[in-house]
Amino acid sequence: MHNLQDTITAPATPAGVSALAVIRVSGAHAIAIANQCFDKNIENAEGYTIHYGHIVDDTVRIDEVLLSVFRNPHSYTGEDSVEISGHGSPYITRRIIETLLKNGARMAEPGEFTLRAFLNQKLDLAQAEAVADMISSNSEASLQMALSQMRGGFSKDIAVLRQELIDFAALIELENDFGEEDVEFADREGLKVLIAKLLTQIEKLRSSFAAGNVLKNGINTVLAGKPNAGKSTLLNALLNEERAIVSEIAGTTRDTIEEVFTLNGMQFRLIDTAGLRESSDTIEQIGVGKTKESMRKAELLVYLFDLSTTTPAQLGEELKALPPSGQTIVVANKAEIGRYTLSDWPESTVFISAKELEIQPLLSELERVASHYELGNETVINNARHADALAKSSEALQKVLHGLDHGLTSDMVALDIRNALFQLGLITGEVTNDEVLDSIFTRFCIGK
Amino acid sequence: MHNLQDTITAPATPAGVSALAVIRVSGAHAIAIANQCFDKNIENAEGYTIHYGHIVDDTVRIDEVLLSVFRNPHSYTGEDSVEISGHGSPYITRRIIETLLKNGARMAEPGEFTLRAFLNQKLDLAQAEAVADMISSNSEASLQMALSQMRGGFSKDIAVLRQELIDFAALIELENDFGEEDVEFADREGLKVLIAKLLTQIEKLRSSFAAGNVLKNGINTVLAGKPNAGKSTLLNALLNEERAIVSEIAGTTRDTIEEVFTLNGMQFRLIDTAGLRESSDTIEQIGVGKTKESMRKAELLVYLFDLSTTTPAQLGEELKALPPSGQTIVVANKAEIGRYTLSDWPESTVFISAKELEIQPLLSELERVASHYELGNETVINNARHADALAKSSEALQKVLHGLDHGLTSDMVALDIRNALFQLGLITGEVTNDEVLDSIFTRFCIGK
Repeated sequence: MHNLQDTITAPATPAGVSALAVIRVSGAHAIAIANQCFDKNIENAEGYTIHYGHIVDDTVRIDEVLLSVFRNPHSYTGEDSVEISGHGSPYITRRIIETLLKNGARMAEPGEFTLRAFLNQKLDLAQAEAVADMISSNSEASLQMALSQMRGGFSKDIAVLRQELIDFAALIELENDFGEEDVEFADREGLKVLIAKLLTQIEKLRSSFAAGNVLKNGINTVLAGKPNAGKSTLLNALLNEERAIVSEIAGTTRDTIEEVFTLNGMQFRLIDTAGLRESSDTIEQIGVGKTKESMRKAELLVYLFDLSTTTPAQLGEELKALPPSGQTIVVANKAEIGRYTLSDWPESTVFISAKELEIQPLLSELERVASHYELGNETVINNARHADALAKSSEALQKVLHGLDHGLTSDMVALDIRNALFQLGLITGEVTNDEVLDSIFTRFCIGK
Repeated sequence: MHNLQDTITAPATPAGVSALAVIRVSGAHAIAIANQCFDKNIENAEGYTIHYGHIVDDTVRIDEVLLSVFRNPHSYTGEDSVEISGHGSPYITRRIIETLLKNGARMAEPGEFTLRAFLNQKLDLAQAEAVADMISSNSEASLQMALSQMRGGFSKDIAVLRQELIDFAALIELENDFGEEDVEFADREGLKVLIAKLLTQIEKLRSSFAAGNVLKNGINTVLAGKPNAGKSTLLNALLNEERAIVSEIAGTTRDTIEEVFTLNGMQFRLIDTAGLRESSDTIEQIGVGKTKESMRKAELLVYLFDLSTTTPAQLGEELKALPPSGQTIVVANKAEIGRYTLSDWPESTVFISAKELEIQPLLSELERVASHYELGNETVINNARHADALAKSSEALQKVLHGLDHGLTSDMVALDIRNALFQLGLITGEVTNDEVLDSIFTRFCIGK
């Protein structure tokens, strides 16, 4: 991997003309290198102090800056670090970086500052991953989950589980040491109870993944209904509520998702179902198939019908024809017609008038759905890598249980326990390998 | 204008997912307001110190941040100020700003931080304008000129001129006080000499405007020549030299200019002349007219011809047909054909092969042109507002001179001197009005 003896630098703020731009420098020589590029002597500056001066390339002035000094270990990376806050011109940022490189720094790889923080034990691996979640958070729910994971609650839970397993392993390995003597230090029945307890905890964490994913990425929602049911009008009404906020969130990846709106801090990601109609055209059929697939995967289906033209019998047929999906909210649109009998329609039907912007009954339903996913005091995981490691830990523990039930030798049991320990260690980074670190940190942005 | 008693806040870094985002707060209550949004007490924190902690909205944690404290007058604005450096998520930035607003700050207007710096006499007006030039600088030449103006050399020159005028005015006004008595405190001949000196200095500054404009905005260059002379190939060869650098400069406004490349820190802005051909189409004629107009305004014309198909006589005709413009470089392309007689062509002709990327002779010529504009020790102005004020000062001084020559009464002379003083004062901001301030600072980006 990267050479950690190097002093690294990178811009920490987005390129663009702006008031300020911040450049980070970290490593053993950070302060010495910055000192060579600065017109004041900061070699003996204390940590957590700010210094006003100019960045100079030999004798040429580059910028008037504020320079912040951080002393090992009291910095983000745990190394000596400097942050240079200059004028927000991409040209100036480039010139400052060039000057730092000329004086011995090298460009940081994406995520290398956080990697160093991890390697210097300022963060465990799950916390380092939460930093990336923090930066990409775009709703209150995703922000609060990232903050909760940065506080380390999740890692501590995992560490407790792992410690119990280590205690297990110690006893079993002790039995191995006695080889042929057939002693049992570890009480087999006690072990089984403990493993069952561990498995319950792991399953609970694993099952929190769906909710965690929703908190992080929003609720995948399909808005369906026949043409002219009023889907576009409803969409506009929903987005109108949130347009000001949505438009401020830059950099949201949309992929195949058409629109995103936020309600009570929870994002709803609306999947387009325009293509959902019968067709004899082969290519169009593939499109319809994909839409139906996304409906099956959706957490929520909002099914809209036109109250003024649909009979209860027709609605029944329409609902029957839907592919199976998660929760469904049936919405009667065009309630402005005013003459309908509530009892004619399914009890849970929500009546709105998208045209008149009377959509509060639907918003209340959406809030109810969102509240299911609210972040409580329970630990929630949201990272596919963690879910995978938990699944593999679970598998290894099941094997241990199976081995105990079938009188497997203690060395075989110990092997499965060690495997589970390895998988859990991968989550917090107590066990690491370059490949795992690489795949985690290269997904970070540069300068972090 | 804005209420300067308010404490203001704004993001200071561009929106976007990144390592860091910086939010500025400035005003009498900056530290108190930030203190209410922070989970550590910073009320008594010293200036130029950094504090690690969390931004909190009541009890809800928003972000883990570094908070820098600046104490009046030792801050950018001259007021108490706080800079909050948080995670680079647009959502988090918005939440932090919301929290600050909730606790009594208001959103800053564009340029309001710098406006406050000016009003608190941290900068004069010309220096404040140089801050905007700094941020938009995109070449070494524009950066160095902005830095030079921020150092205040230009303002000091103006202030010296203005002081001499004030001394004048005092004597003349004294004469007015004596009314009918017909005394002359101010030596008329001495005054004329002094005004002539002032006019020379003003003219020198005014005439530096063209060079200043070039340093700031680059050299307007027209690349012309018959179809198939190799303009596109040359353009690619020129841009290829600089592509890596050019592509890094984000946010360059191009307007009608097609391509920009940098040579020895100087930008060349290439104007498209694709439309330069005879046409009977009325609309196309307008286009050609505009192109010819831009050629007339260009500082530099690079005229390319095909050495393999053009005769010296034809070239003579082509050059004669060109509209008058600034400097011209005649470039013979396709020098790879190898058989031509140097003496057949104008002495200054530059021979290149765009196809073979042998364009060094042209680059040398361009460097020679660029060196004309190099920033020496002389004061250079680059701001149309300053040029205008200098023109008006000059006009007023001419009037004074004319008045002296024609025995105008001292009160009339004093009026013209006062007008010149007013115009010069507008540049440094010793004289201001809201309209001028508004037009200057609303052009700043938010957060500066």
